[in-house]
Amino acid sequence: MTTPLHPVLSIRLFREEKCFGSGVAQLLRHVDEQHSLRAAAQAMDMAYSKAWTMLRRCEEILGFPLLIRTTGGRHGGGASLTPEARAMLETYERYCRRLRQASEELFREEFRDFLAE
Amino acid sequence: MTTPLHPVLSIRLFREEKCFGSGVAQLLRHVDEQHSLRAAAQAMDMAYSKAWTMLRRCEEILGFPLLIRTTGGRHGGGASLTPEARAMLETYERYCRRLRQASEELFREEFRDFLAE
Repeated sequence: MTTPLHPVLSIRLFREEKCFGSGVAQLLRHVDEQHSLRAAAQAMDMAYSKAWTMLRRCEEILGFPLLIRTTGGRHGGGASLTPEARAMLETYERYCRRLRQASEELFREEFRDFLAE
Repeated sequence: MTTPLHPVLSIRLFREEKCFGSGVAQLLRHVDEQHSLRAAAQAMDMAYSKAWTMLRRCEEILGFPLLIRTTGGRHGGGASLTPEARAMLETYERYCRRLRQASEELFREEFRDFLAE
């Protein structure tokens, strides 16, 4: 039993250069769940400084802030998503879902002969 | 005037592991035009041994040969595509074209609010 041929997509958004992809999306998803960039970076086995630079670069290119720094409170200082970051994340995730579905449908159509083998 | 936000896709085909993508497709396209794997590798600034290994690995996973070795003749020995390789290449290229078109349409639909800014 071998795995049948199937498509694998990497979906990134660019302006002049790359500014959003699955890495940033995962990081934002973790920030949203853990209310901390440090915890989010850890969950992805990524250095905090790398996560910080990645988001900062992304903010510069997109032209809006992604994180709100929350100080004090129960979590003793953390981060949460700006409304724009949340909209961007949800739009990207929905876009990826729809595009992956389209890619499967087109694949079955185009590669029919190769899948029959 | 800045470049507007736009999607960039990388489209690869896997079985258990990666077996076909834009690199192999380009290489096959060059072989088809230049009738030589050595010339094709050169055109892509790739070592001949790397190009050879790449295609061999791809043949193993796909389960059919990609190149026909042509010996002698005007070009003094070279390579051309098997019918299966040609079908695979054309199917992959058509699939990529259709998928990129779908990705643009879905992008305009989903990211309308971000593009208006």
